[in-house]
Amino acid sequence: MIKLFYNLGACSLASHIALEEAGADYEAIRIDTRSGVQGRPEYLAINPKARVPALVTERGVLTETPAILAWIAQAFPQAALAPTDPWAFAQAQSFNSYLCSTVHVAHAHRHRGYRWADEESSFADMRRKVPETVGACFQLIEDEFLRGPWVLGEAYSICDAYLFTIADWLEDDGVDPRRFPKVFDHRERVRARPAVAKVLAEEAAAPFGEVAIGG
Amino acid sequence: MIKLFYNLGACSLASHIALEEAGADYEAIRIDTRSGVQGRPEYLAINPKARVPALVTERGVLTETPAILAWIAQAFPQAALAPTDPWAFAQAQSFNSYLCSTVHVAHAHRHRGYRWADEESSFADMRRKVPETVGACFQLIEDEFLRGPWVLGEAYSICDAYLFTIADWLEDDGVDPRRFPKVFDHRERVRARPAVAKVLAEEAAAPFGEVAIGG
Repeated sequence: MIKLFYNLGACSLASHIALEEAGADYEAIRIDTRSGVQGRPEYLAINPKARVPALVTERGVLTETPAILAWIAQAFPQAALAPTDPWAFAQAQSFNSYLCSTVHVAHAHRHRGYRWADEESSFADMRRKVPETVGACFQLIEDEFLRGPWVLGEAYSICDAYLFTIADWLEDDGVDPRRFPKVFDHRERVRARPAVAKVLAEEAAAPFGEVAIGG
Repeated sequence: MIKLFYNLGACSLASHIALEEAGADYEAIRIDTRSGVQGRPEYLAINPKARVPALVTERGVLTETPAILAWIAQAFPQAALAPTDPWAFAQAQSFNSYLCSTVHVAHAHRHRGYRWADEESSFADMRRKVPETVGACFQLIEDEFLRGPWVLGEAYSICDAYLFTIADWLEDDGVDPRRFPKVFDHRERVRARPAVAKVLAEEAAAPFGEVAIGG
């Protein structure tokens, strides 16, 4: 069975939603990243990057949200979670790549400045700038990339699960989501999906699980 | 005809190499990002993110290196630049996603701290940490992800063009590439490919081109 290692409040939510929407037979295992478990040998054996998400299948381990999402879409084609035409698929990958390499990175400077600097004054400087940088990313998404009603247009896709996940951090990032009406409406549209509601409830209630690659 | 907007020394080199390896009919147009042309209306009409690379095809514009690389591989299947099995393809996407969202981002803190902070002291702090953060990324690539002789094992792929591009920044990032023998040998193996040598020579000699989406 597929295992997803995740934590509450992390970008792993996107993969969790995609597994649920795909109708996959999977187990979601919450790990306590605040305790540092992701740096211990048993988790590093799963994901040497010491991060969530990590997806464990019979073929091995897969990491990085855009790759996990694309694989879920391709492994469960009946759920139609991504376009199959190569150009349209590439546009979906482009959107998800922007989320991971620019939007998530802008957000991460709020609490994870230690990844790129050492001084408290730098962390404070980075934190101050997050509303501006995250806001600019969402302005671009609002103006250019969110076609509506879903990210790619008429069809719900892996891009919607991922955008929802990151858009749900806006208030904590100091950005008023009502500045972006399309993003705001999209967020509520995704939240109302039964699969998403189920995953959100499960993540909120889940205890920490056991970290082991096997059964 | 396909157009690739790029600049010398940028991650757009990976897409340029992939187009050449694919045998695509394309035009590569160098733009002067130091002059700020990427922020002018004529370029923003192509790529509102104001970055390179941007790939223009008859279907429209595609941005983000992992998405461009995957599309080139799928659009020119005879070049076999990516696995077609969904799991193996996802592993390629995972590798490229790590390069764009973690390795390239670590590198970018050397000269582009202004993206995430405002104070000179923060920029200096970020610059000091780049050898450590970039070095840690390449240690992980050396130990875990570069199978050899190519990234994915026996077959050359889009991952090799992308790793080569970023690995060629190591010296400027203050990291001795000889700390990573597999990465170092890989870099020379990629550089020796005729398509790569041709692209490197062309980029080094190219004048700045015209920024326009048409003709």
